[in-house]
Amino acid sequence: MHQQNQQLLDALAACVAACEHCATACLQEDHVKMMAACIALDRDCADICALTARFLARGSAHAQHLMRECAEICRLCGDECSQHQHEHCQACAAACRRCEEACRQAMAA
Amino acid sequence: MHQQNQQLLDALAACVAACEHCATACLQEDHVKMMAACIALDRDCADICALTARFLARGSAHAQHLMRECAEICRLCGDECSQHQHEHCQACAAACRRCEEACRQAMAA
Amino acid sequence: MHQQNQQLLDALAACVAACEHCATACLQEDHVKMMAACIALDRDCADICALTARFLARGSAHAQHLMRECAEICRLCGDECSQHQHEHCQACAAACRRCEEACRQAMAA
Amino acid sequence: MHQQNQQLLDALAACVAACEHCATACLQEDHVKMMAACIALDRDCADICALTARFLARGSAHAQHLMRECAEICRLCGDECSQHQHEHCQACAAACRRCEEACRQAMAA
Repeated sequence: MHQQNQQLLDALAACVAACEHCATACLQEDHVKMMAACIALDRDCADICALTARFLARGSAHAQHLMRECAEICRLCGDECSQHQHEHCQACAAACRRCEEACRQAMAA
Repeated sequence: MHQQNQQLLDALAACVAACEHCATACLQEDHVKMMAACIALDRDCADICALTARFLARGSAHAQHLMRECAEICRLCGDECSQHQHEHCQACAAACRRCEEACRQAMAA
Repeated sequence: MHQQNQQLLDALAACVAACEHCATACLQEDHVKMMAACIALDRDCADICALTARFLARGSAHAQHLMRECAEICRLCGDECSQHQHEHCQACAAACRRCEEACRQAMAA
Repeated sequence: MHQQNQQLLDALAACVAACEHCATACLQEDHVKMMAACIALDRDCADICALTARFLARGSAHAQHLMRECAEICRLCGDECSQHQHEHCQACAAACRRCEEACRQAMAA
């Protein structure tokens, strides 16, 4: 079961790590105030990606619902992060977009 | 930061997925009673691996402490799973051992 | 913010604890096979309640979405648990129903 | 089992909520930069308290280990929060100290 979903699991794990790293790095920037929305979305995004991965790996009947919410939060987090030039924000935006896309592909399958 | 730890993050994510899958598959076996200890350890192991990954990715000062506990729970879960011949238990045992080893290497580094 | 939501936070925390306890106690019953669906739902329900509580406490814009999913999983878990006479299942069913109701009230507010 | 531990479960849930709320409120302060350490500790503290509650409720053999780590992180988060005059920081410091104390009492029992 979870082997067929390995690509999505990888995208989710990468997005969790990118969001956690981005939140920490944002807190160390000179202008933290500008990063507040980014940090807030990083927290939500890391959490929903982590739970979606677990529901997926366990074959939960509710994994599809979480994927939909996960794709939505990834989209918002990716949009916010993409507006900042910090390397960690750009990396996070990319991870969010890959994860959103992977969720949408899995929902369509 | 978290890129240097990518191997450990991969091992942790793989162990989370293997434990979640193993717990679900154990519940579908004919002799669930025999799998009770395995399911119980799968739950703890998935949880501690998931949190260790997040502390590691965020560069937490407490990541080392979680790695130590994570390695211990992975060892116990791997020992239990290795005693069952089901494919999901053997796969989980292997994931637990790789994760335990990755934690120990990271702690020694 | 989170003080206004204290009743929902309490219901969520109680449901997490009841589901975790129920899953463990189900694994110790003589007829674990009969409890497999209950254990599976307990895992999902504990997870979604725990995350909903965190999104609520942090004032996340996505808390409402999680409440809806949480109410749905609580309903299913409560229905399953209510079919078993074990004390832990009956207690879990009651906690699930209180939590479902608290989510629905918060969504309507 | 988990009923005997209700006081600790309550302290853990209250600390999760206080840390989540404090992190969000810190991000909305004028001087976010000064709150960076507080936000970072809030994240770790909410996570470890949430997991400790689950290990405790499920009767995990590893709950004691998590309590020790939880008490330590609560102590650090409480110390940091207590240095800030914001209401959310003072409330979080109080919740952390109650939770640290509850963990230490449970470990001694």
